Amino acid sequence: MGDRFRVAVVGAAGFGGAVCALLAHRHPSLELTAVTARTDAGRRHDDLYPRYRVPLVLEEFDPDRLAERADAALVAYPHGTAAPAVKALLARGLKVVDLSADFRLGRDRYERWYGEHEAPELLDDAVYGLTEAHRESIRGADLVAAPGCYPTAALLALLPLREHLRDVVVDAKSGVSGAGREATAVTHFVSVTENVEAYKVNGHRHSAELEQELPDGTRFTFVPHLIPMEQGLLASCYALLDRSLSADEVQLLYRDAYADEPFVELAAEPPGTDEVRETNRCRIHVTVAGERVIALSAIDNLWKGAAGQALQDLNLMLGLPETEGLQ
Amino acid sequence: MGDRFRVAVVGAAGFGGAVCALLAHRHPSLELTAVTARTDAGRRHDDLYPRYRVPLVLEEFDPDRLAERADAALVAYPHGTAAPAVKALLARGLKVVDLSADFRLGRDRYERWYGEHEAPELLDDAVYGLTEAHRESIRGADLVAAPGCYPTAALLALLPLREHLRDVVVDAKSGVSGAGREATAVTHFVSVTENVEAYKVNGHRHSAELEQELPDGTRFTFVPHLIPMEQGLLASCYALLDRSLSADEVQLLYRDAYADEPFVELAAEPPGTDEVRETNRCRIHVTVAGERVIALSAIDNLWKGAAGQALQDLNLMLGLPETEGLQ
Amino acid sequence: MGDRFRVAVVGAAGFGGAVCALLAHRHPSLELTAVTARTDAGRRHDDLYPRYRVPLVLEEFDPDRLAERADAALVAYPHGTAAPAVKALLARGLKVVDLSADFRLGRDRYERWYGEHEAPELLDDAVYGLTEAHRESIRGADLVAAPGCYPTAALLALLPLREHLRDVVVDAKSGVSGAGREATAVTHFVSVTENVEAYKVNGHRHSAELEQELPDGTRFTFVPHLIPMEQGLLASCYALLDRSLSADEVQLLYRDAYADEPFVELAAEPPGTDEVRETNRCRIHVTVAGERVIALSAIDNLWKGAAGQALQDLNLMLGLPETEGLQ
Amino acid sequence: MGDRFRVAVVGAAGFGGAVCALLAHRHPSLELTAVTARTDAGRRHDDLYPRYRVPLVLEEFDPDRLAERADAALVAYPHGTAAPAVKALLARGLKVVDLSADFRLGRDRYERWYGEHEAPELLDDAVYGLTEAHRESIRGADLVAAPGCYPTAALLALLPLREHLRDVVVDAKSGVSGAGREATAVTHFVSVTENVEAYKVNGHRHSAELEQELPDGTRFTFVPHLIPMEQGLLASCYALLDRSLSADEVQLLYRDAYADEPFVELAAEPPGTDEVRETNRCRIHVTVAGERVIALSAIDNLWKGAAGQALQDLNLMLGLPETEGLQ
Repeated sequence: MGDRFRVAVVGAAGFGGAVCALLAHRHPSLELTAVTARTDAGRRHDDLYPRYRVPLVLEEFDPDRLAERADAALVAYPHGTAAPAVKALLARGLKVVDLSADFRLGRDRYERWYGEHEAPELLDDAVYGLTEAHRESIRGADLVAAPGCYPTAALLALLPLREHLRDVVVDAKSGVSGAGREATAVTHFVSVTENVEAYKVNGHRHSAELEQELPDGTRFTFVPHLIPMEQGLLASCYALLDRSLSADEVQLLYRDAYADEPFVELAAEPPGTDEVRETNRCRIHVTVAGERVIALSAIDNLWKGAAGQALQDLNLMLGLPETEGLQ
Repeated sequence: MGDRFRVAVVGAAGFGGAVCALLAHRHPSLELTAVTARTDAGRRHDDLYPRYRVPLVLEEFDPDRLAERADAALVAYPHGTAAPAVKALLARGLKVVDLSADFRLGRDRYERWYGEHEAPELLDDAVYGLTEAHRESIRGADLVAAPGCYPTAALLALLPLREHLRDVVVDAKSGVSGAGREATAVTHFVSVTENVEAYKVNGHRHSAELEQELPDGTRFTFVPHLIPMEQGLLASCYALLDRSLSADEVQLLYRDAYADEPFVELAAEPPGTDEVRETNRCRIHVTVAGERVIALSAIDNLWKGAAGQALQDLNLMLGLPETEGLQ
Repeated sequence: MGDRFRVAVVGAAGFGGAVCALLAHRHPSLELTAVTARTDAGRRHDDLYPRYRVPLVLEEFDPDRLAERADAALVAYPHGTAAPAVKALLARGLKVVDLSADFRLGRDRYERWYGEHEAPELLDDAVYGLTEAHRESIRGADLVAAPGCYPTAALLALLPLREHLRDVVVDAKSGVSGAGREATAVTHFVSVTENVEAYKVNGHRHSAELEQELPDGTRFTFVPHLIPMEQGLLASCYALLDRSLSADEVQLLYRDAYADEPFVELAAEPPGTDEVRETNRCRIHVTVAGERVIALSAIDNLWKGAAGQALQDLNLMLGLPETEGLQ
Repeated sequence: MGDRFRVAVVGAAGFGGAVCALLAHRHPSLELTAVTARTDAGRRHDDLYPRYRVPLVLEEFDPDRLAERADAALVAYPHGTAAPAVKALLARGLKVVDLSADFRLGRDRYERWYGEHEAPELLDDAVYGLTEAHRESIRGADLVAAPGCYPTAALLALLPLREHLRDVVVDAKSGVSGAGREATAVTHFVSVTENVEAYKVNGHRHSAELEQELPDGTRFTFVPHLIPMEQGLLASCYALLDRSLSADEVQLLYRDAYADEPFVELAAEPPGTDEVRETNRCRIHVTVAGERVIALSAIDNLWKGAAGQALQDLNLMLGLPETEGLQ
């Protein structure tokens, strides 16, 4: 056991942080040494999440104590509150994957969408953790920002087209766990069941990530929808290209892009989110309809869309096999 | 009671036909005199649908017997099997609203999407029953084809833009009742729950209706999705126009189009399908995002998307107030 | 319109109160003149509950202003907070149906289960509003306490056996709307979906109502369960009798008890809650298995289990036909 | 790899059989060499069940070919059709765990509940595979009958009381996967959602297993209910004992019974089925309410209630650690 990397999960009481704890706990090359929480400190993690069976007590966040016991941390705090914690952990020499939006954007773009940043000096070194797009940068990074769930699904659907992309509509459907563990009118069972609705039609913040990662000048429209489902996310992407590609050419672009990717699969049929539930996989079906390319991309929002991808990033940062603990 | 119109529902054991029976039964100016079914003939309707409390026994279809007891019929048979029944009822002098696709399209378009037609001579006189678009023609018609659920939601979302529409993506999400009462792998609870997926990506037949009713030359992409919900349909429409309209101009187009419509409401927020469940209403939210107009349109697929609209049509055909029995 | 009774709904923003508003609004002999709410005062009711289409603005509770505009009130406040409001309204001459637990129990029993009472002097005149058991007392009452949802379903299942009842297990399953509109860990979609669990195994307060209404000396065990459903309640009752009754004798007891009841139906098969959704009906299936009588009783918890029954009570109190506005 | 036991799963296209394939495939000491199916033969298993990722093609059942490639088989056929397959495999020297009801009962009891048996000569040697009750017999067996899902949950809840049990009501709630993969009116999403109902009130066949395994003379009533859930089963058991036991005595009985059981956990709170989803665990909460003992027992119907327990049995039969591949 002594040669395993020691990992702490900061903010392990939320849905995404809890999966981080699960994955770190059962990872053969990691030792989960600490889990922290704000309001739930003092409770056992396996009391909050019995299925995950992580036998640790949630602690208050204390960077000094964590630094004694961990080589790396997964930080799953809400936006805005993550930056100070990340800064404290980096200063103590830990490698950090942050699951919030705090380090996903360049400074200008961050301030346009979120306001002033708490630790802007760190932004230049933070790497956007979409593994399939930035693998090499992630390997050498000390700070990786795990992408949002919507951008993960949408970008994986669109990146093979990047040379040709002119315009795209991303209509995304997410399960309710994406709205977080906080009990609100939005997450009440009665609000969710037998209902579907769009939200933040004029500017969900995940748009900023799409804007940053899509080729300059791509016109895009992104609308997220909430559907009566716990876990899962489908991004339906409707693209117009700068020139007409045949169906075969499009298929070839996708096959080339993802031939060696361990977690991206091309599906012969439109993928259902139940095919990827509790996996780190993204399943993509692409087809051509007239001038449009339709790319449908299914992930588990808490896994490939959050904790799974964070572990995939961490594997790379620590020099471990990228897929370890995620199969 | 003697001065009420007598109505029969043909195919009243399916989901759409059952709502037809419910609505006709409680309609103050209609008398529901017969309900028919194929495999369920002999069973009581209120045994199949206890909530609806229609106290009639389902009969075999017999046009002569129906003609003795009914002035009008709502036909809710599957595509292809409706045409002969409709023909038989029209020949006996009944007014008919047909809920199948059999009379929605012109002959050429029908044959391109569905194959040979069973009663092509009737197609010229059939009126497409989207009330908000064809009200006057419906009033004088003997045969009205109630639109499909997807086209109903999408067309109501798009018609105010018709003068300017150049390109549109329609991403639609439907509850499972839209797939019908037949038990199949697709409608199994285990297939549906915790899942969302697109289907018939390359050519759902409702595309034919959109193609017919949208202005010539409009480029459109239509993709339906199945979500874990019983009843309800949301059409998210993403339109590009031939020239840029301001947000105010767009709002004005919608207000003008629907100011006097009894069943179309403009919503200040993106509508949820739970807001229209078991009503004949369509709620539309429209907004402008860059060059795109986003129009979100929620209906109950079995009501405004099928039986409710059929009754609305029938009211017009019989000279009754359009909203009677539907409030 | 001048001869309709004027009604106010106090606490109309909660799930039960909202249905009270719906039912009062569409009742032919009532005029809904005011709806009140605590935190939602100032909002439109049809903004909170678009489907119900009650076109009123929620007001602060002011008994003087209500007394000017209403002959009767339906009070749908949480337990403990209802009593002062009820007292104020009664003092101003209104007839009141209270949906909380504040007036359901005799004083001793109340204090044993809930603590000190805010208006104990009113308890003697309050009538327990299970219409099928206390119809005549309800007719003359100024204050009626609408029963809890669980006791409604269980008592209707058991009352025909009352002469013989010795022991009963009541295993009840409720949809989440029974837990109220407040967003809590319990009502979060993620907690509810794909889950079933018992709660308050050692003493749900509805036990007090069962204890009061069942014959003295009946041994009973009551355990409520939460299931992934919005609206609906099934009480499965397993009874041992003081002597063996044949299946025919048991059926006869139920047929006699409910022959003339407008809202209780005997079902040939075990009832599903979907058969009574959004109705004021209770459907009961009874069968004999060895020495046990099994009685299964399905209601809509918000209708017959709350608002519907409250309106049924109010109809009687106002001398209106018992079923008016509830069919 | 050569020293792993080779296993075939017969009937791997159904829900239970598919989990058998998943568990055998990822089991460190087993090699899954074949999966069979009747109507789905020729299809890939990971096409039917993408999440499970079992990379095998479903074959027709051929005992000779299976015998060449397997040391043991898990048979997941429907009741009645399993017996001939089991007989053929046993005759060729395989060890068999059968998941159907065909070998769970003694001959008399079997014929009373199911009719004539296809291979009665095998009944004497078949062991009832409730591991916690029959561990030693399972170790030496060639044929083990995995218990039904309902008896598994109920018996684990009741066995610690067996010395004292006089009467028990078992009210069980199951997810829809328990009804199997066949698409029927019962499994249609629209039938299941927003509904709960009891079924087979007068004699679900699982009663036969309870009758066999509970102490002679125990009076019991068993009623299963279907709830809107995919996977999971809760058995709520209400027991009367032959003499009064204190709460402490009852707790002690359970702690003693399950202290060393790897898959049975005593829960401080009523267990939810989501706590055991996709695990082989059973979580039991026991409490005393007056003269009654209430024992609530949650399992995953497809895991501990079917495939998980079958693997647990197989581990014992093959001399492997009982928990291997199930943690």
